[in-house]
Parts: sequence; structure tokens; C-alpha cells
Amino acid sequence: MASKIAKGRHCPVTRALEVVGERWTLLVVRDLLEQRTCRFQELLGSLEGISPNTLSARLRRLEDGGVVEKRMYQRNPPRAEYVLTPRGKALGQVVRSLYQWGDRYTERPKSRRA
Amino acid sequence: MASKIAKGRHCPVTRALEVVGERWTLLVVRDLLEQRTCRFQELLGSLEGISPNTLSARLRRLEDGGVVEKRMYQRNPPRAEYVLTPRGKALGQVVRSLYQWGDRYTERPKSRRA
Repeated sequence: MASKIAKGRHCPVTRALEVVGERWTLLVVRDLLEQRTCRFQELLGSLEGISPNTLSARLRRLEDGGVVEKRMYQRNPPRAEYVLTPRGKALGQVVRSLYQWGDRYTERPKSRRA
Repeated sequence: MASKIAKGRHCPVTRALEVVGERWTLLVVRDLLEQRTCRFQELLGSLEGISPNTLSARLRRLEDGGVVEKRMYQRNPPRAEYVLTPRGKALGQVVRSLYQWGDRYTERPKSRRA
């Protein structure tokens, strides 16, 4: 990595985290990676504790960053689903490396499945 | 990945992001990966826009998560440096995958180096 001489936005890690570094964002990407296509309500149900407003904001940010594409699947009332773009699918390696690290280095919940 | 049937803290991605998902955290890890050991003031200078209080909070969180170890290198006035634990070094793959994605999919700043 060349980021010792490339700080701020000159470092690709900084730029990547501008797109996917906010809370919840990589969990949204994880869900979309698994399900390929996903509806707002499904994401809301999957991400325990996220508010609808926050989820909207994260999806908008991911759209703006070219990671997610929004598609209307119903017109009345309007209902959207979200799919990853090729750029979004390329985040698979980031999510996988987080998975591997979390699996190895963090403790599983002690209770049975919530 | 098995997280389709393992949401919330049952998913390793969620648990990983509990430790390193807050803003700035992975940039701190990036700096420590590069420099191996790092002083508070150096980190503060490297991370444009972070406040001393936020940096303290992030370092404390990383200590609590077993990612970072704090070492005093001077007693009077007290001065600390931070090194990654083996668990912290294992985040290298996460940072590298963010680097690769950012390098390929985000735009470099147009200005010369800031």
C-alpha cells in the first residue's frame, strides 16, 4: 500500500470509506450480496435497530456512490428494490474479509439464536 | 457466508463492525499497519479532520476490542504510543481489500497532492 505518502483523499482506503464507511452501510451491502435483490422492508427487517430514515439515507448514499441501483417493482403504491451494481458486487472481498476476521476474532453470542 | 441464517450478532460481519465499524477506526488501523507503532500526535496529524476526543475514543474502543495495545514511552508528561496486537494485524486483509476497491472504483482527487 502506498498510503504512507498518500493521506486524506489521496489514499484509496479513505475514498472507499467515504462510500461505505458509515454505520450500517456494509451490512446493507452484505444483505444485497446474499440475496442479490432486496426490498426496503426486507432490509429493514434484517438490520436490527436501524430506522427507516437511516436506511433510506444509506441506500441513497450507496446509489450516489454507484454501488446500488434502485428499481421500481410496483407503481401504485411505489415500491422499490435494490440490487448491487458491478462496483457494488466488487465489495464482496471487503465483506468476506470482515466475515473472516469477525468469525475468528470475536466472540459468538452465548445465547441460542435470537 | 452463513449469515443469511445468522443475523444480528450471530453474523461475524456484524460483530467485526462492532469493533471496527465506527468512523475513523479503520483509518487508525491503516496507519498502525503501516507504521507498526504510532504516537497519538502522529495519528492526529495523519487523520485530517479528526478531533483529539474522537481519536481518544476510537483508540479506547480498539484497546477494549483487543485490536490495539497502548504503551507508555514517556512518563513525565505521560506519552503513549499504540501498536496493533496480533488480532489487530489480522485486520490487514480488511484494509487491503478496502484499498483495492477504493483504488479501482473511486476517483482520485483532481488537485495535486494536498
